[in-house]
Amino acid sequence: MSKNATGLTHECGVFGAIGTEFWPDNVDISQIILIGLEALQHRGQESSGIVTTNGTTFHTQKGMGLVRNVFNSENMKKLQGFMGIGHTRYSTSAASDQVNCQPFFVHSIHGSLAVAHNGELVNKDGLRKMVLGRGVGLSTHSDSELITQALCLNPPEGEINGPNWPGRIKHLMQLSPLSYSIVIMLKDRIYAVRDPYGNRPLCLGKILPVSDRVNGFSDTQAEGWAVASESCAFLTHIRYVREVYPGEIIEMTKGGIKTIDIIDRPEGKAPAFCIFEYVYFARPNSIFEGQEVYSVRAQCGRQLAIEQPVLADIVGSVPESGNAAAHGFAKQSNIPFGELLTKNTYVGRSFIQPTNRLRQLNVSLKFSPIGVNVAGKRVILIDDSIVRGNTIGPIIKLLRKAGAIEVHIRVASPPLQHPCYMGINIPTKEELIANSLDSTDLASHVGADSLEYLSVDGLVKAVQRNAKLENNKVGHCTACLTGDYPDGIPSNKDW
Amino acid sequence: MSKNATGLTHECGVFGAIGTEFWPDNVDISQIILIGLEALQHRGQESSGIVTTNGTTFHTQKGMGLVRNVFNSENMKKLQGFMGIGHTRYSTSAASDQVNCQPFFVHSIHGSLAVAHNGELVNKDGLRKMVLGRGVGLSTHSDSELITQALCLNPPEGEINGPNWPGRIKHLMQLSPLSYSIVIMLKDRIYAVRDPYGNRPLCLGKILPVSDRVNGFSDTQAEGWAVASESCAFLTHIRYVREVYPGEIIEMTKGGIKTIDIIDRPEGKAPAFCIFEYVYFARPNSIFEGQEVYSVRAQCGRQLAIEQPVLADIVGSVPESGNAAAHGFAKQSNIPFGELLTKNTYVGRSFIQPTNRLRQLNVSLKFSPIGVNVAGKRVILIDDSIVRGNTIGPIIKLLRKAGAIEVHIRVASPPLQHPCYMGINIPTKEELIANSLDSTDLASHVGADSLEYLSVDGLVKAVQRNAKLENNKVGHCTACLTGDYPDGIPSNKDW
Amino acid sequence: MSKNATGLTHECGVFGAIGTEFWPDNVDISQIILIGLEALQHRGQESSGIVTTNGTTFHTQKGMGLVRNVFNSENMKKLQGFMGIGHTRYSTSAASDQVNCQPFFVHSIHGSLAVAHNGELVNKDGLRKMVLGRGVGLSTHSDSELITQALCLNPPEGEINGPNWPGRIKHLMQLSPLSYSIVIMLKDRIYAVRDPYGNRPLCLGKILPVSDRVNGFSDTQAEGWAVASESCAFLTHIRYVREVYPGEIIEMTKGGIKTIDIIDRPEGKAPAFCIFEYVYFARPNSIFEGQEVYSVRAQCGRQLAIEQPVLADIVGSVPESGNAAAHGFAKQSNIPFGELLTKNTYVGRSFIQPTNRLRQLNVSLKFSPIGVNVAGKRVILIDDSIVRGNTIGPIIKLLRKAGAIEVHIRVASPPLQHPCYMGINIPTKEELIANSLDSTDLASHVGADSLEYLSVDGLVKAVQRNAKLENNKVGHCTACLTGDYPDGIPSNKDW
Amino acid sequence: MSKNATGLTHECGVFGAIGTEFWPDNVDISQIILIGLEALQHRGQESSGIVTTNGTTFHTQKGMGLVRNVFNSENMKKLQGFMGIGHTRYSTSAASDQVNCQPFFVHSIHGSLAVAHNGELVNKDGLRKMVLGRGVGLSTHSDSELITQALCLNPPEGEINGPNWPGRIKHLMQLSPLSYSIVIMLKDRIYAVRDPYGNRPLCLGKILPVSDRVNGFSDTQAEGWAVASESCAFLTHIRYVREVYPGEIIEMTKGGIKTIDIIDRPEGKAPAFCIFEYVYFARPNSIFEGQEVYSVRAQCGRQLAIEQPVLADIVGSVPESGNAAAHGFAKQSNIPFGELLTKNTYVGRSFIQPTNRLRQLNVSLKFSPIGVNVAGKRVILIDDSIVRGNTIGPIIKLLRKAGAIEVHIRVASPPLQHPCYMGINIPTKEELIANSLDSTDLASHVGADSLEYLSVDGLVKAVQRNAKLENNKVGHCTACLTGDYPDGIPSNKDW
Repeated sequence: MSKNATGLTHECGVFGAIGTEFWPDNVDISQIILIGLEALQHRGQESSGIVTTNGTTFHTQKGMGLVRNVFNSENMKKLQGFMGIGHTRYSTSAASDQVNCQPFFVHSIHGSLAVAHNGELVNKDGLRKMVLGRGVGLSTHSDSELITQALCLNPPEGEINGPNWPGRIKHLMQLSPLSYSIVIMLKDRIYAVRDPYGNRPLCLGKILPVSDRVNGFSDTQAEGWAVASESCAFLTHIRYVREVYPGEIIEMTKGGIKTIDIIDRPEGKAPAFCIFEYVYFARPNSIFEGQEVYSVRAQCGRQLAIEQPVLADIVGSVPESGNAAAHGFAKQSNIPFGELLTKNTYVGRSFIQPTNRLRQLNVSLKFSPIGVNVAGKRVILIDDSIVRGNTIGPIIKLLRKAGAIEVHIRVASPPLQHPCYMGINIPTKEELIANSLDSTDLASHVGADSLEYLSVDGLVKAVQRNAKLENNKVGHCTACLTGDYPDGIPSNKDW
Repeated sequence: MSKNATGLTHECGVFGAIGTEFWPDNVDISQIILIGLEALQHRGQESSGIVTTNGTTFHTQKGMGLVRNVFNSENMKKLQGFMGIGHTRYSTSAASDQVNCQPFFVHSIHGSLAVAHNGELVNKDGLRKMVLGRGVGLSTHSDSELITQALCLNPPEGEINGPNWPGRIKHLMQLSPLSYSIVIMLKDRIYAVRDPYGNRPLCLGKILPVSDRVNGFSDTQAEGWAVASESCAFLTHIRYVREVYPGEIIEMTKGGIKTIDIIDRPEGKAPAFCIFEYVYFARPNSIFEGQEVYSVRAQCGRQLAIEQPVLADIVGSVPESGNAAAHGFAKQSNIPFGELLTKNTYVGRSFIQPTNRLRQLNVSLKFSPIGVNVAGKRVILIDDSIVRGNTIGPIIKLLRKAGAIEVHIRVASPPLQHPCYMGINIPTKEELIANSLDSTDLASHVGADSLEYLSVDGLVKAVQRNAKLENNKVGHCTACLTGDYPDGIPSNKDW
Repeated sequence: MSKNATGLTHECGVFGAIGTEFWPDNVDISQIILIGLEALQHRGQESSGIVTTNGTTFHTQKGMGLVRNVFNSENMKKLQGFMGIGHTRYSTSAASDQVNCQPFFVHSIHGSLAVAHNGELVNKDGLRKMVLGRGVGLSTHSDSELITQALCLNPPEGEINGPNWPGRIKHLMQLSPLSYSIVIMLKDRIYAVRDPYGNRPLCLGKILPVSDRVNGFSDTQAEGWAVASESCAFLTHIRYVREVYPGEIIEMTKGGIKTIDIIDRPEGKAPAFCIFEYVYFARPNSIFEGQEVYSVRAQCGRQLAIEQPVLADIVGSVPESGNAAAHGFAKQSNIPFGELLTKNTYVGRSFIQPTNRLRQLNVSLKFSPIGVNVAGKRVILIDDSIVRGNTIGPIIKLLRKAGAIEVHIRVASPPLQHPCYMGINIPTKEELIANSLDSTDLASHVGADSLEYLSVDGLVKAVQRNAKLENNKVGHCTACLTGDYPDGIPSNKDW
Repeated sequence: MSKNATGLTHECGVFGAIGTEFWPDNVDISQIILIGLEALQHRGQESSGIVTTNGTTFHTQKGMGLVRNVFNSENMKKLQGFMGIGHTRYSTSAASDQVNCQPFFVHSIHGSLAVAHNGELVNKDGLRKMVLGRGVGLSTHSDSELITQALCLNPPEGEINGPNWPGRIKHLMQLSPLSYSIVIMLKDRIYAVRDPYGNRPLCLGKILPVSDRVNGFSDTQAEGWAVASESCAFLTHIRYVREVYPGEIIEMTKGGIKTIDIIDRPEGKAPAFCIFEYVYFARPNSIFEGQEVYSVRAQCGRQLAIEQPVLADIVGSVPESGNAAAHGFAKQSNIPFGELLTKNTYVGRSFIQPTNRLRQLNVSLKFSPIGVNVAGKRVILIDDSIVRGNTIGPIIKLLRKAGAIEVHIRVASPPLQHPCYMGINIPTKEELIANSLDSTDLASHVGADSLEYLSVDGLVKAVQRNAKLENNKVGHCTACLTGDYPDGIPSNKDW
């Protein structure tokens, strides 16, 4: 299913960057952060923000809308300093308001701090009750404010002395082990934090000096360090180093980076990186667990061809999200790949009157069939996922009008059936089409000659085939497909 | 001096309204608040906001700019409920940012609360240190956030039990006796609070049923109650009742209003209502201490004529702020009043190049001399105050070009010489012209034949002549004129 | 009646300026034009525009909204050159569209030309038919485009040779003698044209060198020349010289100004300057026919006091448009003048729900009674005119609530009863209250103790008392008061 | 070369639609036009506009920006009627101004008319001189205004009687045989006109009744007719019928469509449809000369593989414009196709500082290499064209950084070397990289192992292989590739 036509929305992208002693004096790091946010734009288009500091003053620019609408050459000038964090956001809640834009910034008794995060605290309610109970007023319902105020709060006697930010962060991680990637900026350092389950992604990169960028990968000193939700944000000027480990706290200063601690998961719990990052959210060139997302998706296509073969003349995809899987399917099945549809990138929201006359034109405005590949052909159409199932029907009709004699849908992920409590805004159970129609009924509902999903086992196999897993432990969160939540279904826990 | 041409800026206007049991079900009180804010617009044009509630949900609309730009028929619809508070603001700090818009709203362990205030906490630094020290992060440097978090904080053991909002408010007032008028809204009540010195104004009104508004002042049951910084906000649909007393805490609920407590000033301290509200800030039809502002200003003009007489053909004013005093001066001196200048209301900011060629045209674009009243005349021009002294020179030049043979300036208030720590953004000592030039030198500097101020004694006399003062105690803050601060010059006090 | 609360709207203000050989090279005349338009803003707030030229290229900036919204420091930079014309507009037609913004600019076979005008062609339909009949397509229904294309059109054989702009202008004036003031800019000159009846105002000024502005009115060489709808646009940097005569064509070049011709009115016709410019439209400091508008209005007030005396305690006005007449009335009647109402300048459009509950608050939001001058008093309230009569009723109610014991309305102009075909957008006959209620009935309708108008004779007497009329001929257009149109009621004439 | 990274810009898309007697009364045809413009958005993003009519009144909505920014549900409501024309525009001139938005609309002696066109009049200067010489003023330098006024002008005596719009159109076509597609709307009809050379595209479609759209292509009566620059604008609700023939004038009325005339080319001239529509501009699913654009592009890829073979491991494209050719190349060469790059659709303009530090990041922000298909591979990268050659170098660097061991560029069109005078905004000769570097030098300049173009003969062969050409005459304009202009190089001709 096409990413642009979906009901799935991802909360956030985070980015942090700091210059080392080799960082040139007259350069503001905000440009690096801006580029990072543009490259993470697919993780959230609702609002974005950057906070920078030169070690004394903090500078903030936040706003509703795309990165390119929030920032301009004018307001970029004020984002001075050698260090900063940024955020791009798609809210899970209805409250898409200016006040919820991240990074969240406060003054505390131990100095100012800015916080940006991706994810959702599964025991949010308990943490919220604790913070309110200590006499703090909270302006919003956002996790960012909650995390920030929890970090500020003086902990119970004897537990943590003075500022002790690492101690405060560890304390928070123990209270709330899942799910988040957080960047926390103080006046002289950034902490990059990933939850112990590794549910949300976060990776580390080295900002290359200009000479290295031009001449290639010689191994001179880093000019700076960066962390990002996805490695696609590093482009060519930042060298991907590794993932931040589940539970790791990295401290980034002018002097370099160091691992402060790695917080354990609760006894007996496996790592649980969100498998839907592979299936759906991430950019194809991002790297998770040592492998490129595109290659995993292609592998899913191969697996799908093994599990659900069908005789046909041509294999294509719903562009562009299904491309990789379609190529994999084509290779495995030996059926030639061909473009079945092109996408009109200019089409946005539309003003078509909701009358019978013009209904369903939206889909044909967005996707155009390529006659030469469709007419008179038996076609296999690969989609990355099916959520509500609203788009696939009109697309099939489009292909049939263009002369397809058979249309077989193959979905490169298993049926989506359960809610997510860890940061993904999945529609309600009722809205998820897989909860009301099995694949046979869905095929007939959308007018396909056949429709089949990849199995959960097949997906896990495709994902883990080449993954460098932590201690070789099996470890992905498949809760939205299976209902198995890494830490049980969250309730309102006190603590 | 004309209000529009000045360097003096007033922080804020506050408004609160609640419907009683007679309030009609299908009516939102937000309209009443909106009208109130429009009528208080002169107290702050930087931002405005309204928070309402129906007893369960709170609704907020805030934004930068004039009331009419922040609110529209669309967003007014969402401001539902029988109760709400509003705010219009001119910041004293440079940080004119969305994040500082009031009312300030937070969720606390004891329920949500919204806070709006006018004034400035003189011991802000101590209070801030206390709040931060308790582990609260503060997003802004605004007093509103500080007040709100201070109210939320659990006080030291034994001091206050449970929610006990009145106790929390009293506690805050004892910690910080000056200077503010505050409205605090909880889900079922509004507290209206005025500082013990009565430095900032606040008054109480009764929302009349429609029948009363049409038929006049019969004495039926109130439909609701309102508080406002100035009675001008009551228009004709709310009947002015009285001022909120210095130190008074009024609780407003569906059932009616009651005085919870009246907090004393520190031993031996006199009330200290800001005398510049009379001179400059307030709308002429507002009522303070039982008298209409216009009549006080007219009395200032009379007093000025007694203190600083001069022979002339005509008395006029810098419109419109000097009008009342000019009429008073004319009556007292028996010199006829006449319009000397008209004001071009369309003129806003201008793009005139800062070259010698076009300098000073700003003033002549804004004010036009009335030739028939000026040519060949000895004129007395009344201004309400002189701050930086930038405008009066060009105005005098204008009058002379129009044929005035003598120009005598009479200022209906004493020289402004000291900073204000209680909510008025007075320019620095260096910028206040009265600190560098006495009236004789200033006359020659601006090209006047003479220039004289009203004396401090004269001003106080004019103000107190008909005022209903608390226990007949002398009590106005004249700090900006005399340097006598009601509570001493504020320092960073711990507590 | 207050200008801001009226249904009367004036079409346009025009401004033209050219530098002479003494004009400084590095200065753009656009600043002078911008200031002129700001000062003419009262004549039209719908759109404004400026076209300038340096003798080769033309530069245009036009847009919807107030002058200060259309122009900014950025777009002013591109308005280069020593010569330009400007326009500010309030449309009479519903088509308030970008496309109708003036100046109108075209390329013609004889070079580019820009045209701006104030007024309305009474024989528009005939002229339009002629232009269309010659095969020209017209994009709009505006007179500006019509005038421009009529000027461009090759006239019938033999009539005009070559460019011959003066000939073309004269031709147009003969075809269409009424009503307009026009500025026409070619690449090296501006023509300033006033209709033969002198119905719309236009005056001439001399741009003073900087030294003269500072030192006063010495008689050095002009730096440039300017024409404007009203002399208020000249401020202090342009010296008022005289009115452009009815029918005059002035040619303005780098070398100076000269009268090209003065076109006669049709045989036996009197001049017909719009008397409502005095009553209502013009700024009080503008000069028409050798007299200041303010003094004429004051004279109207005196005349009104003679014609319609009444016993009372105080005389005031609806601010600010009634001020001059009120002062005149007070002087003549020996009843003291006092401010009865102050105006809230911040109030714009409002979002008050159209329910009975809040109706009529608009007026009390805009005007506040001054209690000390109203309570217990018999008041006379002077308004400049009454159009629809919607505002005066609520104002009277306001005064009564503030304690007025008698309210007498005196209107400083005669009843408005007829449409205008010469550029003023007067409501329909049905909407004009004077067509349905006589003064007695209107008094009772609006709740006044009495209401009386100035007589037509009285108005004409007040206006002509000190006017320097052309050849001492009686000559004002009073059509909207009397139905006597200067050239008869316009019909669709062919020519 | 990627369409989004190019210097080539196409002027315009046009659309016209009319309902027949079967058109439902309560439906506005504007929705059909809006959808058409959205689908033609790739032909111009600068401005767009629609004019509709119900047979009496004309309604216009035009504005700068994308279709979705110009139109909204509010302003669509006013576009009433059963007939209308629309336009989407990218200007060739610098004057990207509101005033140049099409359709152009005027009132003429023979009724109102609205005109929209795609193309450029090669003898514009002569036509302009003629129109100006007749005494018409022209507001703009746009061809639309020129065409419109030329149509309005009364022709020389005896030539055309009365309105006679067909006669006027024919007259214009004879005066100016190239290059345009025009829609002209009068109050009861639309004329669709294509230049005699057929240089710019225009096609005809039948608006299907709702039942047909749902049930497929049964042959019921048309509900209406439409013309569009490309058939991609027809989606599924309009059935493609045929191209408008070169020189054809189609009259569309409520009663149906008919060919009024087909104007001949000058003696001996061949048809000259722009070959770059195939190469570059058109959407892949559009149909020209009986063939789908995608299939022509694939054929170009095949031809390129034949002409310029090279040994490699994988063939890919610069997405998405090179996709079809890359698939063709892969098939012909038997080298597997694979995605080499993905495109970040969110990236727009960027604020990257123009310093050495961050240069070239723009390209890597826009395109990301797919490691699994690039690393360790010899890659062939297909681009559709090379204009300035700015983008290809950074892309090659990107591929090398991702591990490509050889990068061979194959360009699916010949070198671009000459300006276009027929509506395409091609950079200057100096900017066209093919004029300064041959393919070998360009390869080394951009860092490719090899770089080769398709030959002109190869392109023509690929295009004409399946094309249904007019009378089998060879006939495409290849002027930008060969310098052979269909009508010679245009000069300023009088007529």
